[in-house]
Amino acid sequence: RDVEKDGKLSYPVISVNDAYTKSMFDKKYGTGQSTIDGYLRDMNLLLASKRIVVAGYGWVGKGVAANCRGMNAKVIVTEVNPVRALEAHMDGFDVMPMSQAAKIGEIFITTTGMTSIIRKEHILTMRDGVVLGNVGHFDVEVDSKFLLKQSKSVRRVRPYLDECVLKNGKKVYLIGEGRIANLTAAEGHPPEVMAQSFSNQLLSILYILKNHNKMPKKVVSVPKEIDKQIAIDALKAMNVKIDKLTKEQIKYMGSW
Amino acid sequence: RDVEKDGKLSYPVISVNDAYTKSMFDKKYGTGQSTIDGYLRDMNLLLASKRIVVAGYGWVGKGVAANCRGMNAKVIVTEVNPVRALEAHMDGFDVMPMSQAAKIGEIFITTTGMTSIIRKEHILTMRDGVVLGNVGHFDVEVDSKFLLKQSKSVRRVRPYLDECVLKNGKKVYLIGEGRIANLTAAEGHPPEVMAQSFSNQLLSILYILKNHNKMPKKVVSVPKEIDKQIAIDALKAMNVKIDKLTKEQIKYMGSW
Amino acid sequence: RDVEKDGKLSYPVISVNDAYTKSMFDKKYGTGQSTIDGYLRDMNLLLASKRIVVAGYGWVGKGVAANCRGMNAKVIVTEVNPVRALEAHMDGFDVMPMSQAAKIGEIFITTTGMTSIIRKEHILTMRDGVVLGNVGHFDVEVDSKFLLKQSKSVRRVRPYLDECVLKNGKKVYLIGEGRIANLTAAEGHPPEVMAQSFSNQLLSILYILKNHNKMPKKVVSVPKEIDKQIAIDALKAMNVKIDKLTKEQIKYMGSW
Amino acid sequence: RDVEKDGKLSYPVISVNDAYTKSMFDKKYGTGQSTIDGYLRDMNLLLASKRIVVAGYGWVGKGVAANCRGMNAKVIVTEVNPVRALEAHMDGFDVMPMSQAAKIGEIFITTTGMTSIIRKEHILTMRDGVVLGNVGHFDVEVDSKFLLKQSKSVRRVRPYLDECVLKNGKKVYLIGEGRIANLTAAEGHPPEVMAQSFSNQLLSILYILKNHNKMPKKVVSVPKEIDKQIAIDALKAMNVKIDKLTKEQIKYMGSW
Repeated sequence: RDVEKDGKLSYPVISVNDAYTKSMFDKKYGTGQSTIDGYLRDMNLLLASKRIVVAGYGWVGKGVAANCRGMNAKVIVTEVNPVRALEAHMDGFDVMPMSQAAKIGEIFITTTGMTSIIRKEHILTMRDGVVLGNVGHFDVEVDSKFLLKQSKSVRRVRPYLDECVLKNGKKVYLIGEGRIANLTAAEGHPPEVMAQSFSNQLLSILYILKNHNKMPKKVVSVPKEIDKQIAIDALKAMNVKIDKLTKEQIKYMGSW
Repeated sequence: RDVEKDGKLSYPVISVNDAYTKSMFDKKYGTGQSTIDGYLRDMNLLLASKRIVVAGYGWVGKGVAANCRGMNAKVIVTEVNPVRALEAHMDGFDVMPMSQAAKIGEIFITTTGMTSIIRKEHILTMRDGVVLGNVGHFDVEVDSKFLLKQSKSVRRVRPYLDECVLKNGKKVYLIGEGRIANLTAAEGHPPEVMAQSFSNQLLSILYILKNHNKMPKKVVSVPKEIDKQIAIDALKAMNVKIDKLTKEQIKYMGSW
Repeated sequence: RDVEKDGKLSYPVISVNDAYTKSMFDKKYGTGQSTIDGYLRDMNLLLASKRIVVAGYGWVGKGVAANCRGMNAKVIVTEVNPVRALEAHMDGFDVMPMSQAAKIGEIFITTTGMTSIIRKEHILTMRDGVVLGNVGHFDVEVDSKFLLKQSKSVRRVRPYLDECVLKNGKKVYLIGEGRIANLTAAEGHPPEVMAQSFSNQLLSILYILKNHNKMPKKVVSVPKEIDKQIAIDALKAMNVKIDKLTKEQIKYMGSW
Repeated sequence: RDVEKDGKLSYPVISVNDAYTKSMFDKKYGTGQSTIDGYLRDMNLLLASKRIVVAGYGWVGKGVAANCRGMNAKVIVTEVNPVRALEAHMDGFDVMPMSQAAKIGEIFITTTGMTSIIRKEHILTMRDGVVLGNVGHFDVEVDSKFLLKQSKSVRRVRPYLDECVLKNGKKVYLIGEGRIANLTAAEGHPPEVMAQSFSNQLLSILYILKNHNKMPKKVVSVPKEIDKQIAIDALKAMNVKIDKLTKEQIKYMGSW
C-alpha cells in the first residue's frame, strides 16, 4: 500500500487478506486451532482452569478466545478498540487493561498485529511461572528483548521454550522467542485452511486477468463474488448442501 | 429507502439499524435471549437434547443458534447465503436445506427477515408434535395461513400457542400465529438492550443536527464514530476498563 | 429417614431422589432450565456479560452454571465441598468464598439445599441493583427475613420481584421472597422431566411389589436395574438407538 | 482383582484408579486434553466442522467429547450403557450405534477400555480419508490387525500415522497402530495431572500404613477422606479459596 500511496502502482492489486472467507478460515479457525496446538506442544500444561489472557479481539483473538474457553480455560481479553471490547464483554469474557490482566494471568497470547502489547512494566508484575507467546504478525508484541537480554538467566527448557529468570527472581517462559507461536512450535495451518487461502488467491488472479481493464490501478478488497465462490466451493468440497432463493423470495427482496 | 430512490428525500437519514453495536446488542444478544425466553414460556419444553432448526445465520440467527447450543440443544442451520452457511458449518452446526431439516427438526425458529421459509411442502413432512415460530421481521416466514386455515382442527392450548392438527393426523404447534415470538410470548428486549438502541438513535440525531449541512440527502449508515461512542458509553456504564493506544503504537500503525 | 433411624419403618422404601437418571433429568436439565426460565421471566435482564454467582456445584448447580455460561454469562461458583469446588474450577468457573463473590456478583442463584448461604453480612457488601434468588429446597438459603423486614422500603416491582432498599441506600431485588424461583416465577419442570420422575416412581413401586419379601425394611437407593430401565425407556421414547455388547465383548469383560 | 477373587490377597489394596479426583483430573481433563493434543499433532487436520465419533461416554469420553465440541467439531457418541447414552443425548451430542456412525464420521476416537469397538464391518462402510485412533486402555478397540494386515497397502505418512488403502480403494488413517494416541503421538498427561495422580497414590499408601490393621484384606476404593484431602491440596496449590460450613449449617445438616 506504500507503493499505492506513492501513485506508483502500475496494475490493480487484490488484497486477499481482506476476504471474509479468508478471515474466517485462516484467522478464526486456522490460527485459532494452531495456536492451541502450538501452546500445547510447547508448554505441555493443562489449559482447563488456567487464566489465559488473549490480547486483541479481532478474528484471530476471537478464534483463540473461543477455543481456550472450549478447553475450559478462564479467558481475559484486552483491547484498545471499544467496539471489540464490548463484543468480548458481551460474549462472556472478562475484559480489562493489560496492566491489570498481567497480575492475574497464567498464560498470555498476543494476537493484535500491533507492537509492544506486553511490555517490561507488565512483565515485572506477573506471577511466577507464566507463559508468554505471540500469534500476531511479528515478534514485537511481547517485549522479548527485555526477557532474553535483561534476565538473570535464560535457559532453553523445551524445543521452543525459554525459561527466563527475572532479576526479581520470578520465572517467565517465552515461546519461540516471541515469534509466531503457531508457526514455530506447531506446523501452521492445517491443509484445509491453506486450500481455502490458495483458492482465494487463485480466484483473485483469475478475476484480475478477466477484469483488469475495468479495474482501477490500486489495492482493492476481494470482490464479494469471489468470496461467495470460495464459500460455494468449500461447501461443495465438504459435501454440505444449502437452500436456494425461490422466485417468490427474490421478488420479496426486490420489494424492499 | 423507497423515498430515497424516488429522489424525494429532503433531509439526511441515518439508518440506525445498520450500526455494529446495534446488531450486536439488539440482534445477537437481545433477540438471541428473548427468543429463548419466548419459546420457553410458550412451549415449556426442555431445550436440552432437542433438535432445533434455526433458519438464517445473520446476527439474529447467530445469537439464537449459540444460545440454543448453550442450553444443550442440537442445532441445525439453514441458509441461502453460502458465506454464512460456511460460517455456520465451521462454527460446528449442522447445515442442510430446509427440505431435509424439516424431516428431523423438533423445534423451528425462523430468523431471516425473508418470506416463505417454512412452507406447506416442508410442514407436511414434519414429525408429530413439532413447534414452529418466527423471530424475524414479519409473520410471513412460517406459512401460518396454511396451518391456521387448512388444518383439520386448531386449538389454543397455551396463551400464545396453537395446536394445529394437520389432515395427515400430525400435530404442529405454532407460536403467536407466526408473529415475532420474542415479542408476543415474552417481553421483547431487556432494558439494557433498549438503552443501547435508544442511545444509538439519540447520538444519530445529535450527529445529524451538528453535521446536516455537510451530509448528503440520503440514507447513510451510522457513522463509525457514533458506533464507537456507544461502545465507550456502554463499557463505562458496565464499569469495564480497557487499554488505550500508546504513542509508540500510534506511530507503529502509521508506519503501515 | 428419621422414621428409619427410630427402627419404626415397617416396609421397605426406595428413595427415588437418589436415582442417577432422576438427578440428571430433574436436577441438571430440569432445574437447570427452569432456573433460567424463572430468572428471565422475573427479572427481564440480559444474562450475557452478567457476573452470576451460583452457590453450590451439585447436580442443580452444575446445570445452572452450565446454562448460564451457555447464555454468555460470567459464572462464579461458591462451594464448601473441596472435591466439588475443584471440579467447578477445572470446568473453567471462577471459584471463591461467598464473602468475596458477594462484592462482585450481579445475579445470585442459591442451589445448595443448605441454610444461610447468602447472609446479612454478604448482602451489606453487595453492589447496587443485584438480584437474589433461590432454586434449592427451602426459602432459608437467602436471608429474606433481613431483606423483607429490615429494609428501608420494600416494593413489589414485578409479579414475583421485590425491590428492597437497604438502609445503606442500595437496592437489592429478591425473587419470590426467597422461595424456589423456578417454581414461583416459572412453571417448574417441563413435562418431559416430570415424565422421567414419575416413571422412576412407578418402576420403584413395581419393584417393591415384586421384591418386598427379600428387601430389608429400610430406605434404599433406587436399584441400578431401575435406573437402567428408565434410561432405556427414555431413549426409546426419544427415538435414540444405541449399541449392544457383543458376545466377544461380554467375554472380554469377564476376563477382568 | 483376580488375586482377590482367589482369596489370596495377603494385604489390603486401595484401587487409586477409582478416586473421584483421579477420574476427574486424569481421565476427564488429562486424557481429554492430551487426546486433542495427540490428534492435532498427528493428523494436522482442522477439528472445527469435523464430524468426530467418540466411542464411550465414561470420564474419558466425556472429556474428549466436551473438548471436541469446544473446538467446534460435531460430535457423535456411541455407547452400550443406556444411562450414559441418555446423558450424552441430554448433553446435546448425537447418539447412535457405531454401524450408523461409521458411515458419517470423519475422525474416530475410542475411549471405552473395551474390545472390538471399531470392527472390520464398520471400517468397510467408512468414508474415504477417515482417521481412526484409540485413547482407551489397550490396542484392541480399533481392529488395527485388519487395517495393517489386510489392506492393499500401508504407508507411514507422518511419524505416528499409517495410511491404509483398503481393498475397496478407500483410504483409512490409523494413529499409533491403534495404541493409546495421547501417549504415542503426544506426551501423555501434563505435569499437573501427574501430580494429582501421584499425590493420590502417596496418600493412599500413607493411609494403608496407618490403617492396615483395621482394613480387610481386599481391594477397596480410595477412602473419601483421601479424595477430599487431594482436592484440598490441589485447590491450595492453585490458590483457590472456598467457603467453610458455619456452625449453624452443620447443625442444620444434622437436623435431617
